[in-house]
Amino acid sequence: MKFVSYQATQGSDAAADYGVLADGRIVRLTTAQAPSLRHALALEGIDGLGRRARAALDAQDGVAESEVRLLPPIPDPEKILCVGLNYFLHAEEAGMAVPGKPSIFVRFGSSLAGHEQPVLRPKVSEQFDYEAELAVVIGRRAYEVTEEQAMDCVAGYTCMAENSVRDWQRHSNQATPGKNFVRSGALGPYLVTPDEAGPVEQMRIIGRLNGETMQDDLGKNMIFTVAQVIAYLSTFTELMPGDVIATGTPAGVGFTRKPPRYLRPGDVFEVDISGVGVLRNSVAQAT
Amino acid sequence: MKFVSYQATQGSDAAADYGVLADGRIVRLTTAQAPSLRHALALEGIDGLGRRARAALDAQDGVAESEVRLLPPIPDPEKILCVGLNYFLHAEEAGMAVPGKPSIFVRFGSSLAGHEQPVLRPKVSEQFDYEAELAVVIGRRAYEVTEEQAMDCVAGYTCMAENSVRDWQRHSNQATPGKNFVRSGALGPYLVTPDEAGPVEQMRIIGRLNGETMQDDLGKNMIFTVAQVIAYLSTFTELMPGDVIATGTPAGVGFTRKPPRYLRPGDVFEVDISGVGVLRNSVAQAT
Repeated sequence: MKFVSYQATQGSDAAADYGVLADGRIVRLTTAQAPSLRHALALEGIDGLGRRARAALDAQDGVAESEVRLLPPIPDPEKILCVGLNYFLHAEEAGMAVPGKPSIFVRFGSSLAGHEQPVLRPKVSEQFDYEAELAVVIGRRAYEVTEEQAMDCVAGYTCMAENSVRDWQRHSNQATPGKNFVRSGALGPYLVTPDEAGPVEQMRIIGRLNGETMQDDLGKNMIFTVAQVIAYLSTFTELMPGDVIATGTPAGVGFTRKPPRYLRPGDVFEVDISGVGVLRNSVAQAT
Repeated sequence: MKFVSYQATQGSDAAADYGVLADGRIVRLTTAQAPSLRHALALEGIDGLGRRARAALDAQDGVAESEVRLLPPIPDPEKILCVGLNYFLHAEEAGMAVPGKPSIFVRFGSSLAGHEQPVLRPKVSEQFDYEAELAVVIGRRAYEVTEEQAMDCVAGYTCMAENSVRDWQRHSNQATPGKNFVRSGALGPYLVTPDEAGPVEQMRIIGRLNGETMQDDLGKNMIFTVAQVIAYLSTFTELMPGDVIATGTPAGVGFTRKPPRYLRPGDVFEVDISGVGVLRNSVAQAT
């Protein structure tokens, strides 16, 4: 099953809705009690929401996907936690040792645009780099869970362009500034439930720049599995419904190329993950 | 002027209110439109809120401060941004070079307790360390502001026990895990407006453990001034009303002592900042 958050008209001031997507049509699920997908996950759980979605699909026609403006599936996450180095080949290309524990930094929701919305190259840097990643959305509070319990807390998956501003990422040893420029990354297009997405190990994560494959690896090559990452994070913080976890990027990012290939206005970057979808964003210059 | 967030009864399920504190009495300011201090700052600004608070103080008696349970002044911040190394002597004791740019990491609100509430030593570590810090609360959206504009965006100041779990802070080069254990730190007791708190340069920041002064330095010895930090942060992210900025800790933290002095259940740690207040928390073992 696929869930989306969207604005019913293209105007940026329109209210945000969420709904279920099937056969190219979106049926609205927004209610007063659950005004966002995050609230719905918290109130109903992914199973309850699924039942409501199926009933709504039976009863209503909805609107064509092409008529709405997609937002990040969770436009208002409480937390976005990102794993820094999680593929062996990416650690190697970045000149970093394979980490013994997940390297964790934070993005804010304001750093992420929706599908087909431009991502913004900052005014202050030309080192704007792409990173294709699988993102996990939490569906159920997870605190001090084991690896065995962890996957029961997953609502589903989506794609993240976890783009980075390299010089600002390296202003100090903390990555925060380079990971949080306004609308520098993207999330979407859909939240896909695990039964539909299939196992992470079998997913193929591709980053494509202007049609050319730049990153291409399999979920089974993650250094830390999704279950391990959730268990680790849940040791120190309460993961809540709607929280987003970015699972790291495969090898092939722009700064490791000779010469480096950074994003420029007019570029189009796609995150293509089998079973999860294709997130597509053009690059615009921040003004 | 001093603002607080609180629960009117000691029960942890009571609704959160906010109000103004004067002469040991709190007058409630909560409204339907502005249900939290963060909302009030966003809707009215610090000046508008100040006018409403003065009128309320003239009209109502309020409740004694001792009758309520204080929460962090901003219980629900959108963002908590922390500067990692911001005092020359602390950089020296930590064996770190004086940074050329602020080192920025993120805490979540769930990592902070209120005044006089216990902070929790995690189950998984004995390296639970204290850090006394001045925290800045943003009162007005600040995006791409200059150092000259930055201080106009400050709603006021409060104290933070920006406590750290050292081994988890060093699992990788990203500090996130060690800074985000549930209720490991604290914020409060009050949001004090700049006119009452005085200039940061003249503030004396003291960390006191069981009555003994462990940290003691002046705001003028910060490597990056509050204005510089706000200008830097606002280059990449929109600072919003209620956002909290922790300005770094002075020398004297536990891990630098020989032998190290980590927090143990039963300890009491105070953050005492002249003009801003005394934040006091006992240490309890997480169970």
